[in-house]
Amino acid sequence: MAETRTISVQQHIMSANDLLAGDIRARLDAAGAFAINIMASPGGGKTSTILRTVQALKSEMRIAAVDGDIVPVDVDRIAAEGIPVELVNTGGSCHLDANMLLGVIDKVDLEHTDLLIIENVGNLVCPANFALGAHANVVIASVPEGADKPYKYPGMFRGADVLLLNKIDYMPLSDFDVEYFRRGVMAVNPDVTFLPVSCRTGEGLEGWYDWLRAHVRK
Amino acid sequence: MAETRTISVQQHIMSANDLLAGDIRARLDAAGAFAINIMASPGGGKTSTILRTVQALKSEMRIAAVDGDIVPVDVDRIAAEGIPVELVNTGGSCHLDANMLLGVIDKVDLEHTDLLIIENVGNLVCPANFALGAHANVVIASVPEGADKPYKYPGMFRGADVLLLNKIDYMPLSDFDVEYFRRGVMAVNPDVTFLPVSCRTGEGLEGWYDWLRAHVRK
Repeated sequence: MAETRTISVQQHIMSANDLLAGDIRARLDAAGAFAINIMASPGGGKTSTILRTVQALKSEMRIAAVDGDIVPVDVDRIAAEGIPVELVNTGGSCHLDANMLLGVIDKVDLEHTDLLIIENVGNLVCPANFALGAHANVVIASVPEGADKPYKYPGMFRGADVLLLNKIDYMPLSDFDVEYFRRGVMAVNPDVTFLPVSCRTGEGLEGWYDWLRAHVRK
Repeated sequence: MAETRTISVQQHIMSANDLLAGDIRARLDAAGAFAINIMASPGGGKTSTILRTVQALKSEMRIAAVDGDIVPVDVDRIAAEGIPVELVNTGGSCHLDANMLLGVIDKVDLEHTDLLIIENVGNLVCPANFALGAHANVVIASVPEGADKPYKYPGMFRGADVLLLNKIDYMPLSDFDVEYFRRGVMAVNPDVTFLPVSCRTGEGLEGWYDWLRAHVRK
């Protein structure tokens, strides 16, 4: 009797990505570089967070960046801080995947990098599904986006190691309910490191820098 | 001599979507229903705009909605306004496509609908690539996202018929440069109808309602 089999294509694609992400992780670990994958909505504050972080920590650790924006307007701003930045050509894709990252990782001098910052494409959906081999996923939410985001985009919040709630300086004009937001986060990811910050005023960012200091080997 | 041919898969997928979008448009036109496809970042204000619009216009025209969010938290809020709402099962996808919309369009009583509001998935990248057969694309940007969005996500802004710049009530706390934003929009889409609004205070929304009044046949 003939046997009918169903093959899950999504499964295979994901596995291939995970294999490549494993390769990247092995190279990072061999070089002693700690990598973070920064994800957020468009306008959530990825580039602002990166600029603040580089300014605060570049005298303490060697930082490099990989930028996955569709149109590379942020690369020059980050490079102006005096760190090496590589642009990933996403071909208009809505996320980075491990294969895209492998295409540029050879250009990064990992042996002389303590912290590799990967800026993903601005999107709360697709990037959550593609591991990049980074040691930590950093998700940036922001106050003006509204407190319902953990409920509407649970996949992104579930995978976060660090959650920055940015733009808390907008709180006085906002009806953002921090406890509603926090409950939504805890429901999907009770172990996340949750840090309210403002990249404009700098409020709360010391906690983020301390988290990096504790995780980056120098 | 053997001939080598390159087949563009992306081209074929797009064309199939466009064919289905054409089917949807034909059905809308036969029923006399005007459809808008609302796109924005997560938290840009899609649902708030829809709620405001329904509240303002439901006494003047028959409105129905189709909601494409990944997790359907907004469907109940829209249905509470007393209009029919259908949920599209996107299966976790980052955008609506014409095939998904065809899966629910039969549930909408198009013959008794003047305005069909389609709420796309919160994403500034992928939805721009998939026509839905709607008569107009409505893109919502928002002040806290920053004025560089037209430069970073040109595909979304290029395809807009109406551009709402939402959350202008945040202007006093923001360094948003309206002229820089406007130049970025004009560079890719000089003919767009550009309307600054606030869905919280209601400022500017009369212009949006008037645009709908001028386009919806009753």
